[in-house]
Amino acid sequence: MVHNGIEYADMQMICEAYAFMQKLGLSAPEMSAVFASWNEGELGSYLIDITAQILQRADPETGAPLVDMILDTAEQKGTGKWASQVALDLGVPAPTIAQAVSARTLSALKGERVAASGVLTGARTPAATGLPAQALIERIGSALLAAKVCAYAQGFALLRAADLQYGWQLPMATIAGVWRAGCIIRARLLEDIRQAHEAQPELSNLLLAPRFATLMVQAQQDLREVVALSALHGVAAPAFMSSLAYYDAYRSARLPANLLQAQRDYFGAHSYQRTDRAGHFHTRWQD
Amino acid sequence: MVHNGIEYADMQMICEAYAFMQKLGLSAPEMSAVFASWNEGELGSYLIDITAQILQRADPETGAPLVDMILDTAEQKGTGKWASQVALDLGVPAPTIAQAVSARTLSALKGERVAASGVLTGARTPAATGLPAQALIERIGSALLAAKVCAYAQGFALLRAADLQYGWQLPMATIAGVWRAGCIIRARLLEDIRQAHEAQPELSNLLLAPRFATLMVQAQQDLREVVALSALHGVAAPAFMSSLAYYDAYRSARLPANLLQAQRDYFGAHSYQRTDRAGHFHTRWQD
Repeated sequence: MVHNGIEYADMQMICEAYAFMQKLGLSAPEMSAVFASWNEGELGSYLIDITAQILQRADPETGAPLVDMILDTAEQKGTGKWASQVALDLGVPAPTIAQAVSARTLSALKGERVAASGVLTGARTPAATGLPAQALIERIGSALLAAKVCAYAQGFALLRAADLQYGWQLPMATIAGVWRAGCIIRARLLEDIRQAHEAQPELSNLLLAPRFATLMVQAQQDLREVVALSALHGVAAPAFMSSLAYYDAYRSARLPANLLQAQRDYFGAHSYQRTDRAGHFHTRWQD
Repeated sequence: MVHNGIEYADMQMICEAYAFMQKLGLSAPEMSAVFASWNEGELGSYLIDITAQILQRADPETGAPLVDMILDTAEQKGTGKWASQVALDLGVPAPTIAQAVSARTLSALKGERVAASGVLTGARTPAATGLPAQALIERIGSALLAAKVCAYAQGFALLRAADLQYGWQLPMATIAGVWRAGCIIRARLLEDIRQAHEAQPELSNLLLAPRFATLMVQAQQDLREVVALSALHGVAAPAFMSSLAYYDAYRSARLPANLLQAQRDYFGAHSYQRTDRAGHFHTRWQD
């Protein structure tokens, strides 16, 4: 289930990279070459590999790229939904996986989307990005890697939470190794994940492992810039965006949830904790 | 339950606006004044009102703003989680609500966040935004309104899906009216929502109602710019971002889910539909 949740995120992030490159005007064969080159590096995985193959396939009937003839309505068997629901039950943030599931359900609203496309306008300034296409493509690849690490971190954190909750004593390093050897995600990254868990069996989040912290520090700026460009150019990027928000929230010693706790205490007397001493406190806010 | 899902999103979006204004260097009393002014306009709501009150409250012990003394670890009673799980069961995209729940669970990982804050770096260039603070604050208010409309649209779409699924014949206009009169969200916007449902009882999504389409067309550019700035400046904005991604996906006549369907057909022979004729098709991709 967790494997498939990660797989949903992987697939959605590849689709977002593809959508961005389409916006840049790349043809399907050109994008195939990009994915093939990514497959040689840190992004290497079964899904990247088959994406390269898919994008070079022509439709025998029309001669167009076959992918262009496929309806943009994603279906699902329910495993991503299951992973998202269990993450909610266990209180584990897995926003990229959740967004990947949501993106599939949204894609299914084809009729509404077509109607909306005539009414709801996009970005005011679909201006040039100021960057040559090649630089942008490299940035998208780096952003994809960073977003992917965040999604895998969420999936492994979900496994760990279940492990603690149910006392399963899951062999995390072995799981990463098994996923590297078979299954759908089969990402090169999994070997690093295996090693990280072998080195730190109690690792609470992949982002804290030196290998991945280093990777994120290197790649996070590219993720920021791709997210900003997606926002400004009207390219829907729910998974990229949720990975970045996850990263930024996770690395925040202080989040704005203090205000949220104050609101809860105001309207529901739910109480709050303080930063300077233990205990639960309630304020009569309206006095 | 749906009311509370929307409430979670409302609260998280207010927190993100607050975090952004903190980044701009505004003091708690200054932010209180901003929220009080927003409360006079289209953003007017119980939650905006109490936020203005909360931000002007001093801690009797330290003299500091009380909100600053509150621990940034959000708690929950589970209604937002319930709404998210039901949305998944009904296949309704409700990403902003889901992100609001996820943000609460992430805020609870205080120890991990503090550890991560020393390791995971932020934006490379926390440079000036190039805009005067007042202009930015207005933009944040407009972005908050746009993000809020998307969250309410998700909540009402969830109600509608349940209505169709279970044959409840929900009086949508009356529900909006009831929420306007009581409950926590109690937003001025709800009167427009009531009218929209009264005018179009079969309305599939609020974004398609003329009043809200017009509002979104006016405000979407501000949401884009606030999201881009959040990304570039390292302010975690999961709800703002997911609302924008929802808007951009919803108004896309063509999404990249065609590639996703090709992937599913490649690795699982799940078949796909074509854009040019009916039926389900399978390609032997590896030939």
